[in-house]
Amino acid sequence: MCLTEEQKTEIEAQRAGHAATRRATVPALEEMLYRAIPVLDHGFIRVVDYMGDDGAVVQAARVSYGRGTRQVSEDAGLIRYLMRHRHTTPFEMCEIKYHVKLPIFVARQWIRHRTANVNEYSARYSILDREFYIPAPEHLAAQSAVNRQGRGAVLAGQEAAQVFDILREDAARCYHHYVEMLNEGAGGAPADPGRQGLARELARMNLTLNTYTQWYWKTDLHNLLHFLSLRADAHAQYEIRAYAEAMLVSVEAWVPATFAAFCDYRLGAVTFSAAMLSVLRRLLAGETVGQEGSGLSKREWAEMMEVLGRQG
Amino acid sequence: MCLTEEQKTEIEAQRAGHAATRRATVPALEEMLYRAIPVLDHGFIRVVDYMGDDGAVVQAARVSYGRGTRQVSEDAGLIRYLMRHRHTTPFEMCEIKYHVKLPIFVARQWIRHRTANVNEYSARYSILDREFYIPAPEHLAAQSAVNRQGRGAVLAGQEAAQVFDILREDAARCYHHYVEMLNEGAGGAPADPGRQGLARELARMNLTLNTYTQWYWKTDLHNLLHFLSLRADAHAQYEIRAYAEAMLVSVEAWVPATFAAFCDYRLGAVTFSAAMLSVLRRLLAGETVGQEGSGLSKREWAEMMEVLGRQG
Amino acid sequence: MCLTEEQKTEIEAQRAGHAATRRATVPALEEMLYRAIPVLDHGFIRVVDYMGDDGAVVQAARVSYGRGTRQVSEDAGLIRYLMRHRHTTPFEMCEIKYHVKLPIFVARQWIRHRTANVNEYSARYSILDREFYIPAPEHLAAQSAVNRQGRGAVLAGQEAAQVFDILREDAARCYHHYVEMLNEGAGGAPADPGRQGLARELARMNLTLNTYTQWYWKTDLHNLLHFLSLRADAHAQYEIRAYAEAMLVSVEAWVPATFAAFCDYRLGAVTFSAAMLSVLRRLLAGETVGQEGSGLSKREWAEMMEVLGRQG
Amino acid sequence: MCLTEEQKTEIEAQRAGHAATRRATVPALEEMLYRAIPVLDHGFIRVVDYMGDDGAVVQAARVSYGRGTRQVSEDAGLIRYLMRHRHTTPFEMCEIKYHVKLPIFVARQWIRHRTANVNEYSARYSILDREFYIPAPEHLAAQSAVNRQGRGAVLAGQEAAQVFDILREDAARCYHHYVEMLNEGAGGAPADPGRQGLARELARMNLTLNTYTQWYWKTDLHNLLHFLSLRADAHAQYEIRAYAEAMLVSVEAWVPATFAAFCDYRLGAVTFSAAMLSVLRRLLAGETVGQEGSGLSKREWAEMMEVLGRQG
Repeated sequence: MCLTEEQKTEIEAQRAGHAATRRATVPALEEMLYRAIPVLDHGFIRVVDYMGDDGAVVQAARVSYGRGTRQVSEDAGLIRYLMRHRHTTPFEMCEIKYHVKLPIFVARQWIRHRTANVNEYSARYSILDREFYIPAPEHLAAQSAVNRQGRGAVLAGQEAAQVFDILREDAARCYHHYVEMLNEGAGGAPADPGRQGLARELARMNLTLNTYTQWYWKTDLHNLLHFLSLRADAHAQYEIRAYAEAMLVSVEAWVPATFAAFCDYRLGAVTFSAAMLSVLRRLLAGETVGQEGSGLSKREWAEMMEVLGRQG
Repeated sequence: MCLTEEQKTEIEAQRAGHAATRRATVPALEEMLYRAIPVLDHGFIRVVDYMGDDGAVVQAARVSYGRGTRQVSEDAGLIRYLMRHRHTTPFEMCEIKYHVKLPIFVARQWIRHRTANVNEYSARYSILDREFYIPAPEHLAAQSAVNRQGRGAVLAGQEAAQVFDILREDAARCYHHYVEMLNEGAGGAPADPGRQGLARELARMNLTLNTYTQWYWKTDLHNLLHFLSLRADAHAQYEIRAYAEAMLVSVEAWVPATFAAFCDYRLGAVTFSAAMLSVLRRLLAGETVGQEGSGLSKREWAEMMEVLGRQG
Repeated sequence: MCLTEEQKTEIEAQRAGHAATRRATVPALEEMLYRAIPVLDHGFIRVVDYMGDDGAVVQAARVSYGRGTRQVSEDAGLIRYLMRHRHTTPFEMCEIKYHVKLPIFVARQWIRHRTANVNEYSARYSILDREFYIPAPEHLAAQSAVNRQGRGAVLAGQEAAQVFDILREDAARCYHHYVEMLNEGAGGAPADPGRQGLARELARMNLTLNTYTQWYWKTDLHNLLHFLSLRADAHAQYEIRAYAEAMLVSVEAWVPATFAAFCDYRLGAVTFSAAMLSVLRRLLAGETVGQEGSGLSKREWAEMMEVLGRQG
Repeated sequence: MCLTEEQKTEIEAQRAGHAATRRATVPALEEMLYRAIPVLDHGFIRVVDYMGDDGAVVQAARVSYGRGTRQVSEDAGLIRYLMRHRHTTPFEMCEIKYHVKLPIFVARQWIRHRTANVNEYSARYSILDREFYIPAPEHLAAQSAVNRQGRGAVLAGQEAAQVFDILREDAARCYHHYVEMLNEGAGGAPADPGRQGLARELARMNLTLNTYTQWYWKTDLHNLLHFLSLRADAHAQYEIRAYAEAMLVSVEAWVPATFAAFCDYRLGAVTFSAAMLSVLRRLLAGETVGQEGSGLSKREWAEMMEVLGRQG
């Protein structure tokens, strides 16, 4: 992550400001407000605003006049109840806004979550910075042999070296040509007076998908948790998972009771189908059950045994 | 509006609390925070939380690292530009939450705006208060003769008296029977030990549509302005317009530059169709144009002449 | 359900029409198209249009040029895979539209599902019919003693008789007064020439919440299944569950493979929290576990034992 | 646009199939169903399914039991009324689904319209085809000097030749390296047995933004019209406008009455702000008004005069 001095100054100026407010305020989140938390090689997330706290969830669930808080333990119990029974609307009453810098191919996965507000840096209007994502050596993985959308072993040796060369050189060359086609010099004058310069909205098409972009992204707590349950999952692509994991830290600081319930009832939870539930009851009754007599496919059987920590 | 002493105490306790925050803060909105603003005979709106300000709109439009503010006049200019060209996403970066008490028939109109978060007081879980909307005499209007969904002259004399009697007596009787069927006494015991009491989720069906309900309602600034442009309009039913007008006051306090642009480009604006635009050009060229040669229907012609302040 | 002769004629006229189409067509759903299926005492649902079938789910998942169908068994396997792994977007590619007649208090629960399109009969513009929901004797339930939003035993004897009297008389009186205040006679003339008649948008507030309304409601298959998983659930209020169950029949006719996967992975499935999963592993390892050593609350423990079909 | 023989065969097989349906059917849209309409150099749109027609808009607005159609002229009048007064929900009752092939940088603009359903071809799971967008010579435009997000004159001569060389060579080289890093040979074996091959989800990051992708995109008529009003506009980037214009043809075939109203009240309409309306009234009253005394900025004044076809 390379913030310019000017950017650091702007961030610190915001952090230095304080105002008095009657709103619900969370000191632990205030502490990290505006700070850029590094993700991948040049990316970051930073919380730029928030609204509400654990108490706001309780307040909305009770449609109360005051703060909604009785005792901390009672509130946590209600939050656990809401999470367990999928009463999702009270969690929609909290809102958070992030500034995120991320590679374009990650942005394309991210944007599939539609219930959020987004303002992206416009490459139609402005010029993108010269920054590309190059995986760290330990994340340069081969295609998985068993899962068409998964990764296998880490590449090493000459193959890894060649891949790094390709990624770096192609991104650099494409960016160099992007700037050349734009032909923009200092102060608005053309760099080369003999050329007009290609329109920004066209020149950008020459960039590679690992070029970094950035956006403001705002969503409510319920939709954020849904996003995180999918993107912090082991099946998510590593690059977006890295962002999800950084965001989990901010959620824990922001709404600790909700976060704890989320870990128990979502992140760490498992859903059994009707057929699996039937197998489970037979197992608990002491019956010996194998895949063949289970009614489950081999894949489902294997998944279930893994979850239960048993040999198939 | 009749807040109980307990409710007033809860509200004042919230207003008394202050915390330091690094977030964007709007003193004018802080001043009205939590306070119930009366609407209709027993309803209210009150702002219970907010996120962002005019600067947050600018910040998102520029995807900037700092506050996004240059000079106040420059920011206002950008906000006017965004509003005029319907660049709506920067306005989605501000969020506001209201606690609203409103008659059920108004709630049913309101909920048609789907891009918002809602937590309503549950009559399945709790017992509704004994409060019904009865129009003020000056709002007890006859059916319009020309507009099937509009109002005509105000009812007066004996007809008005009869209507008031009906509205009051039917609402009161239905509520009385609601409580009777519930049969709930003090401390959870039945009021009449000889009866079980009807389930709350069923008993509520006996209430009339002017019974008050309440909810927490949260939305972003763009969707709020869309709601207000429709519901503060002269064609909206008076009862929901009363809420929209109270909310406009909070918007003006919250985001004054956005509010000014909204008044100019939305509330006070008029859209001319292609056919109307053609008429307009002919009029400006000094041509005499009547409805018949205009290509407009009689209704459209009348609407256009009214907007232009001309005799048809 | 009382359709007028005119309504029956309109429905049969639509059913009689046939056209040739190149679109995916489902004979089993065509067979029930437009027919009103009774729900509660005067309500109904009827499918008025649909788009797509099981094959459209497969087609979208594969982004294929043709029909997307290989073998029926292979398609069903893919649909099961998508359902199990919560790949929800392919199910959004099918759409269905219902015409529904339902009591207003049910409509108010229903509308909380926001990702749908709705056009409701306007009581601001038109006059509602004289139809109210009165529960069947076997659904006239007492308040549950253990669950604040549940039902207990069925009311009987004199208490039931009194409740039925109240519900019938209050609804009838309110409706009678509604018509009287409207004062609309035949052909647009006032019924009583001495009165102006109250505006429709106001008169409606005198109606009780069990008055029937109707709407066109359209949604995609994914959001429909989400609606049904919540509203066909045993914890849903009986009155909305009755609608959900009638809709399940249309889903089974429309997309049989999706319906089967939905029954297995949603309707019949159970989610265990991280803490429950830990208990499960201990039980399967032969350990004796009681509530106290389980880390679960009494309520969670009871819920888990019930799901597993065990004595606590 | 280069469809393979296999794709053409699949499309023709779908077109050859016919089934009888009771649903609303539009012969003019059936005629173009499934056919790929070329857009840009390798892209296309094709309608793959639809639901409803002009009559369905009328039917929903009236919440009628039958077809909703009285006379064609009466229906068209109602549709014009709904469009003029922005009663948008009846237009949500029609749905259409497109299969679109488009460059990634266009897909990124398109996806900002969130109220739609999307299934995109997955480059995490599959390998993208070797197809890139290269502008036609007449669309290779310079940056606009006056509008930061617009285009100026067309590039010509040596500058154009250089740009074409860069675009073609960089896209080709990046794609070549993409395939090389993947190292996938025939039948699943590696192309070069000495290398493992980079994971697909990583290799794709080396592609340029003009690479073509494809998706199934489904939306309702109201949101489609909103999309088209923004993307068929003269201010939209040419490349997405080309798609919008091809889609307008399908809308005209599908819902001709709605399309006509849309052209009059949206595409050809102009909105005047409160300040502009005040100027208009003065002009119509014969007053001489210049920019300085108008209360409008120079830019607004110029825009207004252009719309009115007057010299400023």
